[in-house]
Amino acid sequence: MDFYAHGGNIYTGHKTPVLDFSANINPLGMPKQVKQAVIHSLDACAHYPDPHCKELTAALSKHYSIHKEHILCGNGAADLIIRFALAQKPKHALVTAPAFSEYEHALRLVNSRISFITLRAENHFAVTEELLPLLTPDLDTVFLCSPNNPTGQTIPAGLLKQILHICRQHGTVLFLDECFLPFVTDSSAQSLLPVCADYPNLFVLRAFTKQYAMAGLRLGFGVCSNKALLRNMHRCGQPWSVSVPAQQAGVAALQCSAYWKQSLALIDTERAFLMQALQQRHMQVTPAKANYILFYSPVPLEQKLKAHHILIRSCENFRGLKKGYYRIAVRTHAENLMLLDAIDRILQEV
Amino acid sequence: MDFYAHGGNIYTGHKTPVLDFSANINPLGMPKQVKQAVIHSLDACAHYPDPHCKELTAALSKHYSIHKEHILCGNGAADLIIRFALAQKPKHALVTAPAFSEYEHALRLVNSRISFITLRAENHFAVTEELLPLLTPDLDTVFLCSPNNPTGQTIPAGLLKQILHICRQHGTVLFLDECFLPFVTDSSAQSLLPVCADYPNLFVLRAFTKQYAMAGLRLGFGVCSNKALLRNMHRCGQPWSVSVPAQQAGVAALQCSAYWKQSLALIDTERAFLMQALQQRHMQVTPAKANYILFYSPVPLEQKLKAHHILIRSCENFRGLKKGYYRIAVRTHAENLMLLDAIDRILQEV
Repeated sequence: MDFYAHGGNIYTGHKTPVLDFSANINPLGMPKQVKQAVIHSLDACAHYPDPHCKELTAALSKHYSIHKEHILCGNGAADLIIRFALAQKPKHALVTAPAFSEYEHALRLVNSRISFITLRAENHFAVTEELLPLLTPDLDTVFLCSPNNPTGQTIPAGLLKQILHICRQHGTVLFLDECFLPFVTDSSAQSLLPVCADYPNLFVLRAFTKQYAMAGLRLGFGVCSNKALLRNMHRCGQPWSVSVPAQQAGVAALQCSAYWKQSLALIDTERAFLMQALQQRHMQVTPAKANYILFYSPVPLEQKLKAHHILIRSCENFRGLKKGYYRIAVRTHAENLMLLDAIDRILQEV
Repeated sequence: MDFYAHGGNIYTGHKTPVLDFSANINPLGMPKQVKQAVIHSLDACAHYPDPHCKELTAALSKHYSIHKEHILCGNGAADLIIRFALAQKPKHALVTAPAFSEYEHALRLVNSRISFITLRAENHFAVTEELLPLLTPDLDTVFLCSPNNPTGQTIPAGLLKQILHICRQHGTVLFLDECFLPFVTDSSAQSLLPVCADYPNLFVLRAFTKQYAMAGLRLGFGVCSNKALLRNMHRCGQPWSVSVPAQQAGVAALQCSAYWKQSLALIDTERAFLMQALQQRHMQVTPAKANYILFYSPVPLEQKLKAHHILIRSCENFRGLKKGYYRIAVRTHAENLMLLDAIDRILQEV
C-alpha cells in the first residue's frame, strides 16, 4: 500500500517534531471556534451524520450566495474528485501537467482516456490562450485548477470564461478546482462560483482543509447547477461520508472572519518575503499567488532538509516537472526563517 | 438527493429530542476515553491524516491477533463496502434478501449481476444448509452478514466454514460482514477473523460505529489475507479517507474493556426483556442475537411512534421483507420502557 505520492505525510517515523512545509495548510492552525465546535459535536457523534449535511449546506449557501441545491459536501475535496469521476465516467478528459495527481488517479479508476497539456516552464507554467484550440469537441471533461497545484498560477477570469463557454458549446464539463483560490489576493473576482447557476457544465471544487487548517477533519464541497450530476455523485459512494465533527467544524469555520483576515495578511506578507528570499538564494521561483511556492533548486534539498526535521514537497513525481522542483507552503515568519536557515546551511555545505 | 433508505436519520426536522431506536448503536454512548482521544487529537487535525492508519492498524493487529498487513481501515464500514465493490468489480454476486442494502448499492455501482436468496420467515430468516447448492462456480462474490442486518440471525460457525471452503474451491470471494458480531454472546467462537490468514478468498468487515457508539466519527476496518485486494481497495478511493479523530478514537476504543463488558451485559439483559415484552404484545419476534430485534406487527407503528418522538426502522424497503416488519435497537432499560409504553398507547387506540 505504498502508492501515496503527496505532501503532508508526517507519519514516517520521525521521532522529533517535524516542521511541515510539504502540505499547503494555513499556518495559523485550526481556529479555536472550530476546535470548540468539534468538542461540542461529541455528544452527537453517537448518531450517524446527516447524509445531506443540511445545516452545513445552508451555511455555505448563505456564506457564498449560492443555491443550496447546487452544493454537495464530501469527506475532503479528494472524496468529491473520486465521486465526480465515478458519476461522470469521463471517456476522454483533459488534464494539465503538472496538476494535483488525484484527478489522474480518479480518472484511471474509471478507465478514462486522458490527454495531458504540458504547461511550459518558460511561461511559469501558466494556462494561456494556447489551451483554447485544444478544447476539442471529443473531450467530455476538462480538469483545471486555479491557482494550480503545485504551480501556484491562477487562470485569468477572462480566459476561464472563454474556456467555460467553449466547453458549454461542446457539451464538455469543466471541473474547476478552486481549493486554493481563497488564499489569492482579490480572489472573489477570479472565482467561477458566481456563474455556476448559469453553466450546468461547470463543477467548482472547494475545500475547508487548507483554508481553516483542518485537513485531519476532512471537509470539502462542490458547487454545480446540474442537479442530476450532484445526485449521481451522492450515490457514487456511501451516504455518510462527512462526519459529524467535520459538518460542525465547517459551520463554525464559516464564521471565523477575523481569523481569515489575519491569515490572508500573513500569507500575503510571507509569500512575498519567501519568494524574494528564495530568489536571493538563486532558486528559480515561479510567481506564486496562493499559500505555496514552486521553485527549482539546482542543489538537492528534500533529503537534506529532512535531516533538519523539515519536510518539503519534492515535485519530481508530478507529471510535467523534473527533478529539482520543490513546493513549499508559506508558513509563519519564524518558521519561514527556520526553513531559510536550513537551506543556507545546505547551500554552504555544497 | 433522497435515495437515503436507512435508519438513524435524526435530521428530518424534529424540534423535540428524539429517542432513536432506528439505528443499532450501543446505548451506553461513546466512551469517555474515546471523547478524550478526539479532543486530544485536535492539535493534530491541522495535518492530513495518516493514509495508512499505522497506529490504529497496529492496535487492531494486537487486539484481534491478526497480521497488520491484513487490515484496511475505512471511513466507516460503508466506505469499505464501496471500495470492495470498486476493487473487486464482481460480475455475479450472491446477496441474501433481506440484507443491509449497501451491498446492493455498491454492486449496482459496478454493474454487477446480483442473485438474491430469499431467506424464509418460517425459518426466522436463518441462513441454512439450503444455501450450499446455490454456491455455484459462476459466482465470483458472496455477501453474507452474521448476525444479519436486519434479521439478527447468526450463521453457525460450522456452516460458515463449509461455505468458505466451497467458495475457495470455486474461486469465489466471501465478503462476510461481522459488524454486529461483537454484540453476540460468545461471539469469538463464531467469527471467521481467526481463519482470515488461511483463506485469501475471505474478506471480514468490522465497524467501530455501533460497538463504541461513534457512528458520527466514521470508522470501520476490513481483514483479508489477499494483500493485492487490500492494496486495490486502498487505491479505489482517496488516500485520506479516515480522519485524524476517527483514527485516534479507534485506538482509544480498543482499550475500553470495562465499558464493553458493561455494554454486553446490558444488551444481553435488555434484548431478552424486549423480546419477551414484544411477544406479550402479540408481535412476531425473530429470535435476536445482536443489539437489535426484527419483528412483525399487525398494527402500523412507525408513524405513530414518531408522534411520540420515537424513531424505529420500518423494514418495508428491505428486499425480502414486507410492510409490518420493524427493526428496533436494544437500548437502556428506561428507554426500552418508554418505547413499550408508547407501543401500548398505540395498541390501545386500535
